[in-house]
Amino acid sequence: MHESILLEHIYATNALLGKQVTIPPGDDMGAIQIGGEEVLITVDQLLDGVHFQLSKDPIEKIAKKAITRNLSDVAAMGGLPVAAVAAGCIPHNFRQEQAEILFDTMRNTAEKYQCPLIGGDIATGDQPLNISVTVMATMQGIPPMLRCGAQIGDMICVTGQLGGSQHSLDGYTHHLDFEPRLQVARMLATHHQHRPNCMIDLSDGLASDLAHLCRAASLSATVDEKLLPFSKTTALLADQGDHPKWKHAVSDGEDYELCFTMTPSHAEGLIANGIDGVPVTCIGMMEPYRGESIVRIRLPDKTYKDITDLGWQHIGQSEPS
Amino acid sequence: MHESILLEHIYATNALLGKQVTIPPGDDMGAIQIGGEEVLITVDQLLDGVHFQLSKDPIEKIAKKAITRNLSDVAAMGGLPVAAVAAGCIPHNFRQEQAEILFDTMRNTAEKYQCPLIGGDIATGDQPLNISVTVMATMQGIPPMLRCGAQIGDMICVTGQLGGSQHSLDGYTHHLDFEPRLQVARMLATHHQHRPNCMIDLSDGLASDLAHLCRAASLSATVDEKLLPFSKTTALLADQGDHPKWKHAVSDGEDYELCFTMTPSHAEGLIANGIDGVPVTCIGMMEPYRGESIVRIRLPDKTYKDITDLGWQHIGQSEPS
Repeated sequence: MHESILLEHIYATNALLGKQVTIPPGDDMGAIQIGGEEVLITVDQLLDGVHFQLSKDPIEKIAKKAITRNLSDVAAMGGLPVAAVAAGCIPHNFRQEQAEILFDTMRNTAEKYQCPLIGGDIATGDQPLNISVTVMATMQGIPPMLRCGAQIGDMICVTGQLGGSQHSLDGYTHHLDFEPRLQVARMLATHHQHRPNCMIDLSDGLASDLAHLCRAASLSATVDEKLLPFSKTTALLADQGDHPKWKHAVSDGEDYELCFTMTPSHAEGLIANGIDGVPVTCIGMMEPYRGESIVRIRLPDKTYKDITDLGWQHIGQSEPS
Repeated sequence: MHESILLEHIYATNALLGKQVTIPPGDDMGAIQIGGEEVLITVDQLLDGVHFQLSKDPIEKIAKKAITRNLSDVAAMGGLPVAAVAAGCIPHNFRQEQAEILFDTMRNTAEKYQCPLIGGDIATGDQPLNISVTVMATMQGIPPMLRCGAQIGDMICVTGQLGGSQHSLDGYTHHLDFEPRLQVARMLATHHQHRPNCMIDLSDGLASDLAHLCRAASLSATVDEKLLPFSKTTALLADQGDHPKWKHAVSDGEDYELCFTMTPSHAEGLIANGIDGVPVTCIGMMEPYRGESIVRIRLPDKTYKDITDLGWQHIGQSEPS
């Protein structure tokens, strides 16, 4: 089964959804009108062997990621988390103590982000640990930041650094330890001048996620290698391995940074000052459609390379929403 | 790991949740105040080998159950479903056609119950098919029906028939083909005279689920064997097997009927007329606490048997919420 084909099939039937569905499947969160409130919702699953390795990753970090991975989707919309529920399919040989640490850390992490864990379902089975978390969010007075909306000539911006998220350095492993960019995203989404035209969180990797922004706007994009903000681990991996830094930065995935586009005049202040202590980097520009949505990188030798969907594939080829 | 111990641990920390959490973990759904709306939410997972058998059950029925199982929780609260999201962990050898039937049937089932599927997450892995569905609901002007609230002397009522849910008869297999009791539950919850004092849906089986109602009210309960509404398959299984009918009725589980209690004078009209074409049976009475919450059955020979938690255990010992 190809996930991309299944997803196309799913999106093709979106038009059948009623008008109370304000964001259909295909964005970082779906949304529906409930009484006077627009309620956003997203679900993400964490599988042993795909999104973590139970044999080596600490339970506390796995539990934290189960929550923060969803909160990164809330950030992508510029939303405020409200509440979470979790379903855990736990292997038979899991110890009571491990299960309690798993649950306590999930609840504490959820509380920390004002997103209380208010329900769940536990099953034990003959399968690897699988945690599925659903988070609800609200917008409180502003429209959600969508994937669509980029304009030709928009600067492409990212927060933080890119690449090497699976690699541990001094006890920090980005894909487990990242901070969801809730506050930065909210500041962007509520800013009357600097509000981006579109936004996404980087889960599959820049090449793949930027392709989503391009397709949603029927545009293309070019990023410049010399502008990319490489993480320390990206630099280390490039020194030690076969791939150049840019390849890690655009395709390692699980950066959980924000990628957004805005008119160049608005972007200027951001580059200089960052937001709330988080660096922001302009890495390229939105360009016209080329018969299809193409993401290219301009390399130091001034050649261009098509990197559309050169996205990170999990061990198990998951497609995060 | 013992799920019951983990659940006790979870409920013990409920008190730490903020006051916007109107129903903490432990009921059929959790609830939170979002702006002017009380939004209810529940998650349930369906695992191959536990809640269905992919090798023999039709995909359409598995997909339908993934939605209706959650809707039975909405019914238990007397709520109205609003929207759903789903996470699917799909085995590598799943065919595209199967995946599309799975998704289409889930979406169509959700639509049928005015509960559009508005988001999801798909992953493929080396594990059995696992579908986790989250449903949101609202109360629209009435308080949710909770598990707590039973009074001494209340009649214990159930809708429909009990037992034999795993057994197929003429192509009908109750645990796959049941109708969630949304309409009956809503009529009960909105009725100014017949509103029950508490309600739950029967997923683990009467003995286990009635014990939840007893514990939530610090009461006990006695049901009468001769009052139990046995399903056709229960009668068949008892004829062919080692267990009496009552044992199937209280412990087979997955009836997805409603169990509720109300004062006897209110219950009388219901027994005679049923609700919306669905039969309602009074099967016993709520009684004082006996140092702990005990569920007993009165057998035809006038002896009493303690059946507390004689609940159905899934193959994989899941504990539905």
